[in-house]
Amino acid sequence: MNDTFLKACRGEEVPYTPIWIMRQAGRYLPEYRAIRGKADFLTMCKTPELAAEVTLQPIDILNVDAAILFCDILIPCEAMGQGLDFHEGKGPILSPAVRDADTINKLFVPDPEDSMKFVMDAIRLLRKELEGRVPLIGFAGAPFTTATYMIEGGTSKNFLNTKRMIYEAPALYASFMDKITATITEYLKAQISAGAQAVQIFDTWGGIFSPMDFREYVLPYVVRIIDELKSWMNSESNERVPIIYFVGETAGLLEEIRTSGADVYGVDWRINLDDAIKRLGSDVIVQGNLDPLSMFLPQDKIEERVKDVLGRASSARGHIFNLGHGVVPQTPPENVIALVEMVHRLSRK
Amino acid sequence: MNDTFLKACRGEEVPYTPIWIMRQAGRYLPEYRAIRGKADFLTMCKTPELAAEVTLQPIDILNVDAAILFCDILIPCEAMGQGLDFHEGKGPILSPAVRDADTINKLFVPDPEDSMKFVMDAIRLLRKELEGRVPLIGFAGAPFTTATYMIEGGTSKNFLNTKRMIYEAPALYASFMDKITATITEYLKAQISAGAQAVQIFDTWGGIFSPMDFREYVLPYVVRIIDELKSWMNSESNERVPIIYFVGETAGLLEEIRTSGADVYGVDWRINLDDAIKRLGSDVIVQGNLDPLSMFLPQDKIEERVKDVLGRASSARGHIFNLGHGVVPQTPPENVIALVEMVHRLSRK
Repeated sequence: MNDTFLKACRGEEVPYTPIWIMRQAGRYLPEYRAIRGKADFLTMCKTPELAAEVTLQPIDILNVDAAILFCDILIPCEAMGQGLDFHEGKGPILSPAVRDADTINKLFVPDPEDSMKFVMDAIRLLRKELEGRVPLIGFAGAPFTTATYMIEGGTSKNFLNTKRMIYEAPALYASFMDKITATITEYLKAQISAGAQAVQIFDTWGGIFSPMDFREYVLPYVVRIIDELKSWMNSESNERVPIIYFVGETAGLLEEIRTSGADVYGVDWRINLDDAIKRLGSDVIVQGNLDPLSMFLPQDKIEERVKDVLGRASSARGHIFNLGHGVVPQTPPENVIALVEMVHRLSRK
Repeated sequence: MNDTFLKACRGEEVPYTPIWIMRQAGRYLPEYRAIRGKADFLTMCKTPELAAEVTLQPIDILNVDAAILFCDILIPCEAMGQGLDFHEGKGPILSPAVRDADTINKLFVPDPEDSMKFVMDAIRLLRKELEGRVPLIGFAGAPFTTATYMIEGGTSKNFLNTKRMIYEAPALYASFMDKITATITEYLKAQISAGAQAVQIFDTWGGIFSPMDFREYVLPYVVRIIDELKSWMNSESNERVPIIYFVGETAGLLEEIRTSGADVYGVDWRINLDDAIKRLGSDVIVQGNLDPLSMFLPQDKIEERVKDVLGRASSARGHIFNLGHGVVPQTPPENVIALVEMVHRLSRK
């Protein structure tokens, strides 16, 4: 088994820097588009065989060191009772948008093995099909990032409704976040029980806040999840799986993020990785941090950047290579294949 | 004359911290909407009397310490030969989108007193109407931020086409940026000649880059403008007006931004101002940095945040209070009025 990724997550010695890529199972791959042509996005998420198939594609094609379950961070919103739909080119639509106590009261904390069983089935299937080749990463949206979609009813430019709820009705926001946090906690436990060997918590929109607001309105809910997962993993004598916390636009928030209790910190590309490590502390394990759009550079320039990131990462206790955000659909797959090869070759001891 | 703003820009002693607010002449004001109801956005920009009228509104209503010309950063794009239109609720449309050498070759560096004369006329009119009450700030988009709109054809989510041009055709990008930079330089000179008493260069999208890319693809063009403006102001024995450089999402880029040569650095809200000052150097003058959406907080909470920002700003050589980005249309005007009063009261020596 290739356990380089898990070893790096635990800060153990590795023969080379492991790499996986956010949204590695995605539209930039012709093999993915072939399946996506036959089923819509939500159907793919909800059909374990299809989800498993596209999850496995990048393992063979890219030679990455981990698989990440094909799914969407908004699946729990639907399980909580909100309508979820994806319109081609328009992004997700969640309805009704959560703006008042009535709507929040109608939402519930679902049993993940009930309304989200397809996710756990996909994980169970994948663990069989992977046959230990590479570890399988499960994931969920962080409570705040999940809340933005539920409050805005989809994506947003300035998160006006989310911040208005926080600033105008903080108690309402807190009660809503309690429900989301409980949902995500149970969801991640179910993923781990089903066989996820690491989990990543995506806080894509966490970086829209000042450090003060981040500490008050984003971080405590992530801390609650991580604390609960850790004590659950200990008490259940489950395998202790690594927890990765990824925040978009981290540069102003690293000192806050550091207190989350995560095992690995995802860093986006807007900051030099060595500067990020300096602020996180050199005893951390970091993941990142190439700009996803640098995949449009000629391969010799990509190689320069890989060297640069590997060099900057050397001051951390451990490093998992990744892009700073998901790979975009227009990306040339051959450059992603080359990236994985470069990381393996250039980091080999 | 209230020259507190200009004194603060020069690092001189001031009786209180001056404040102005990005997009202070805007849709959150009923007085603005009354005029906007009679003319479309571009007509307002292009009619000096209307532009002057809405520029003056916040001076009376808010009691801010500077006026900023009502205009749009995309005006120079039209003057360069690209089509510009604003569709209600959809943002700007620029056509044809700039993607190849042919399109770039058709663009030209305009004489600002020709195709953008209305801007300079508005400045001349405003200087008369202001009668020295407060200084008038002129502005332009930074070359990179301007380029993103011209390349994408409007706003963008991930600036795919812009980064593709940069990464796939860097020489083409450089030739395009040369043209934009020359345009913006002449445009700012014309604004200063017409009477602008300070200028702000808006690099709203500069923060989408890694520090390495920012240093290579964003910063040199801003440096070129600032160098040229400074030597022009010296040689023409013009008044030496302060230059403010504002970058969105600055947190990872402060060391780079510091080398721009600007007199004042705009800082957004995603970083604590004292941390920003630490990285910029305590000899700097900073502008910022309250989250625009914090204007939805109750006034007692706004006051706490004003105190916090003022306290953090005290380590800099000078401070101009501002939001970290433009005030949003839904903002309650009474909170903005209260903000200005709080800044004046709480900072008074």
